[in-house]
Amino acid sequence: MNKIGIICKTGRAEPAEILKQLLPWLGNKGYEVLIDEETAALLGTEGYSRAQIPSLVDMVIVFGGDGTMLGVARLIGARGVPILGVNLGGLGFITEVNRDELFDVIDKILSGKYSLEERIMLTARVYRNNNTVADFTVLNDVVINKGALARIIELETYVDSRYVTTFRADGLIISTPTGSTAYSLAAGGPILYPTLNSIILTPICPHTLTNRPIVLPDGVTIVVTLRAAGEDVFLTLDGQIGFPLQRDDTVEIMKASFTTRLLIPGERDYFHILRTKLKWGER
Amino acid sequence: MNKIGIICKTGRAEPAEILKQLLPWLGNKGYEVLIDEETAALLGTEGYSRAQIPSLVDMVIVFGGDGTMLGVARLIGARGVPILGVNLGGLGFITEVNRDELFDVIDKILSGKYSLEERIMLTARVYRNNNTVADFTVLNDVVINKGALARIIELETYVDSRYVTTFRADGLIISTPTGSTAYSLAAGGPILYPTLNSIILTPICPHTLTNRPIVLPDGVTIVVTLRAAGEDVFLTLDGQIGFPLQRDDTVEIMKASFTTRLLIPGERDYFHILRTKLKWGER
Amino acid sequence: MNKIGIICKTGRAEPAEILKQLLPWLGNKGYEVLIDEETAALLGTEGYSRAQIPSLVDMVIVFGGDGTMLGVARLIGARGVPILGVNLGGLGFITEVNRDELFDVIDKILSGKYSLEERIMLTARVYRNNNTVADFTVLNDVVINKGALARIIELETYVDSRYVTTFRADGLIISTPTGSTAYSLAAGGPILYPTLNSIILTPICPHTLTNRPIVLPDGVTIVVTLRAAGEDVFLTLDGQIGFPLQRDDTVEIMKASFTTRLLIPGERDYFHILRTKLKWGER
Amino acid sequence: MNKIGIICKTGRAEPAEILKQLLPWLGNKGYEVLIDEETAALLGTEGYSRAQIPSLVDMVIVFGGDGTMLGVARLIGARGVPILGVNLGGLGFITEVNRDELFDVIDKILSGKYSLEERIMLTARVYRNNNTVADFTVLNDVVINKGALARIIELETYVDSRYVTTFRADGLIISTPTGSTAYSLAAGGPILYPTLNSIILTPICPHTLTNRPIVLPDGVTIVVTLRAAGEDVFLTLDGQIGFPLQRDDTVEIMKASFTTRLLIPGERDYFHILRTKLKWGER
Repeated sequence: MNKIGIICKTGRAEPAEILKQLLPWLGNKGYEVLIDEETAALLGTEGYSRAQIPSLVDMVIVFGGDGTMLGVARLIGARGVPILGVNLGGLGFITEVNRDELFDVIDKILSGKYSLEERIMLTARVYRNNNTVADFTVLNDVVINKGALARIIELETYVDSRYVTTFRADGLIISTPTGSTAYSLAAGGPILYPTLNSIILTPICPHTLTNRPIVLPDGVTIVVTLRAAGEDVFLTLDGQIGFPLQRDDTVEIMKASFTTRLLIPGERDYFHILRTKLKWGER
Repeated sequence: MNKIGIICKTGRAEPAEILKQLLPWLGNKGYEVLIDEETAALLGTEGYSRAQIPSLVDMVIVFGGDGTMLGVARLIGARGVPILGVNLGGLGFITEVNRDELFDVIDKILSGKYSLEERIMLTARVYRNNNTVADFTVLNDVVINKGALARIIELETYVDSRYVTTFRADGLIISTPTGSTAYSLAAGGPILYPTLNSIILTPICPHTLTNRPIVLPDGVTIVVTLRAAGEDVFLTLDGQIGFPLQRDDTVEIMKASFTTRLLIPGERDYFHILRTKLKWGER
Repeated sequence: MNKIGIICKTGRAEPAEILKQLLPWLGNKGYEVLIDEETAALLGTEGYSRAQIPSLVDMVIVFGGDGTMLGVARLIGARGVPILGVNLGGLGFITEVNRDELFDVIDKILSGKYSLEERIMLTARVYRNNNTVADFTVLNDVVINKGALARIIELETYVDSRYVTTFRADGLIISTPTGSTAYSLAAGGPILYPTLNSIILTPICPHTLTNRPIVLPDGVTIVVTLRAAGEDVFLTLDGQIGFPLQRDDTVEIMKASFTTRLLIPGERDYFHILRTKLKWGER
Repeated sequence: MNKIGIICKTGRAEPAEILKQLLPWLGNKGYEVLIDEETAALLGTEGYSRAQIPSLVDMVIVFGGDGTMLGVARLIGARGVPILGVNLGGLGFITEVNRDELFDVIDKILSGKYSLEERIMLTARVYRNNNTVADFTVLNDVVINKGALARIIELETYVDSRYVTTFRADGLIISTPTGSTAYSLAAGGPILYPTLNSIILTPICPHTLTNRPIVLPDGVTIVVTLRAAGEDVFLTLDGQIGFPLQRDDTVEIMKASFTTRLLIPGERDYFHILRTKLKWGER
């Protein structure tokens, strides 16, 4: 790993401060570092567009929260470049490294003391009148949901060509294990250990009260067709990208052929993250 | 009750069919009947605008589902005109009379064999920069929720000037007991017996998992201020009317000074409705 | 209020320590203080049985947690003696006064600066072969539940002689608003503002997933008959008293004719308690 | 498959009726059939003890419901003998064949037209003072729960030697995917597709409201130690067998080294079962 990309959450001052120390430190060790344009501007150096970085580096360090990580994971896509997430604020579900342990952790990683945690991603393809009109890849979740003013929607759902049900709900979340602690949890979904080979279907405010979250093997093809909705229904990807859906649009969701690869320095303790984030107290 | 208003769900043929029998039958008994314009057109007679009818009659018969009832209840507002709901499709929560028992039921009611069930309504007033910008009355619920693409919203909530919490959620439902079996139920709220003097606060997909639904006495004033939202947040009234909210808008919700008065022919069995609508089976 | 009863949680040392200061302080002010036997023994003085105290005093101070309060509330029963709860550990839902504000608060109360908060209680009567076999009063909840090894039970439930449903579940909680933050909350019930005139029915692990908690007006009579259970089913009262039920036993639950009267010094902020106990964070 | 075992739910008359036709039909085809003693007695022939049958046959046909299937699955244990479940009453989650399609289905299976669905099982080992005091295998779930009168229990939980949390709850369900539609579902757990390689931890009435169900990979070792419980706490296996636990007992739960093998005639449609059993309606 000779070339390191650095991508920072926009609009935050801390990363630039950290980089004033980190860049010379990495330079002295002989690493080439590529920084995103915006952060580079703050430092008075030259940078690269975010979209370019993944194709030019051996690893990416992300300064930000889980949201920034999701964006970078989608940018990396099939390239398989491993990512290290550094928290700027509180502990994240996928940004495990805190600022104060940063140099230690990078040292460990650069000397090979790390493991790679592979997280499944999902692809979502939208069909309209038998044509593909959009293609997306996500790390957390694919969500079909209605706008605030739209009437309830009906989502006719098939798994491997078998009819599951027609969800009458505000929406439907199709989530990876990584996404299980994001929107799906707020909608009543279970927590999935992040390395599971599973996909969760969690309905949002279902009108049929027996429509519980369903966990499926990640080898399935999920096909959801939007019925009985006038307008103002969207496909949202990782809660960050939106795509307007029309009546009778079909969304096909499958596991991506590639994974997000998280750099895990030393020991990993997922339950510690859960306890901290969910405020599980011992009393 | 000499003057009877009739309001029908739009776009349905059955009411006109029923009215061909009902109108002469009521005429023979000496009642004056006022029909909404749209239905009157189907019958080749003259009608009244929906908004006019409540001020001209002693009772209103509604042909439709719960949705049509909600609209009529809001139209009646403070006038206190009692309503009888007649189902066109399946059993409703507030439209209890089935088509086949219609003449019998109306006979009973016109001969005074009925009770009136008073249902509380809520008023919602929107303040923007200390000015009132909108006023609404509802029978079911006042909902503040974000659009499909909006980020999570923060709703700073006070009850009788006491701080409750800041909900970080997709939205917040402020519901009457009548509304407890509508959107609030889908969002995880409890069922409230319809004549209770209570208001429910049900968060929609709350990020703080301990934010459970809260039932309050109906004498309180609930004040909710929208924080930390960019755009695409709406106030929705009975799921039928939308009003766009802006950051720092404040919504004040209170019990209305008047009620919706439902005409209940003979014995009432709310639990029968619950069992039927929620598909509670004995096995 | 000239005579003050003091009842302390058993097996704790702190109350005796506090009383060494509190007793002479109250004595100097001219109050007569009656202490429970067990605490009196620790102080080397004479005491009264817990059961006796409520009939001899004008108010009771309880040192302990919510559990101790529940027991004292049941002891007081119809006598209407007001109670002040003093926390020994963390904040309780009904023991609001902390140790460090104790003397101030008692001073306020003794000089008349307090309000009384009336909390409804429930009575539960068990009928077996048409005979009354037991009678109880509770402040929190009446629970019918099965033992760990018992098969699922069926609870045929009526409200004011109307059939509600037959719950097939681990059990059923009939709770006051005070009890809404105790067992009912753990079983998925809503939070009820404590002064509401309502009773909640919350099924425990219902097999019919649509069997949601139901909030009823507190004027109703709830009748539950135990069907289809072999053995090992109990009525539990406030989680503290147990009574074994037999197949076809009927439990009748109603609001008690008297209330628990809590002494509230100065301003009351129920939402502050909720935020603290439920760990609602502002982030 | 020359030798067929038949085990029937006790106390039911239908199986004997069916067997009067089935036994000669199978005999004519050259199969040897071994019947459980109790059913054999009804038919006036000789039978075998239930425990014996799995070691003597090539497949087992079970007449009964899911409960009977669970018992037979445990009896078969490591022997790997495939099972076919025949419903006597309504559709079961694991007894898919209806009585009227029975002969057709058996014909198909005997001519090799079937698939085998492997379902993971769990082993539970109880340690007391470092000694193993009990060992169990289950198809549905291992449950630790308190009796009706016991106080809340604390369950200190580790996964692969990592501390998860200490559940303060009525109990904890450790379930296979097969068990996900049984007790775990009633306690709020998700539905797991039955062939997933996962184990669910579902707390029963947790006092910490953020303690959501967690889905784990099935390669883990789960260790639960009972803290802070006086008495009346039990380990229950498939809801059918009970074992009393003591304070500080430790239960170790792992995937069994063998599976239950269900005979699936022709096409399988798990979602059809879900829709039927959970009463998911299309309206």
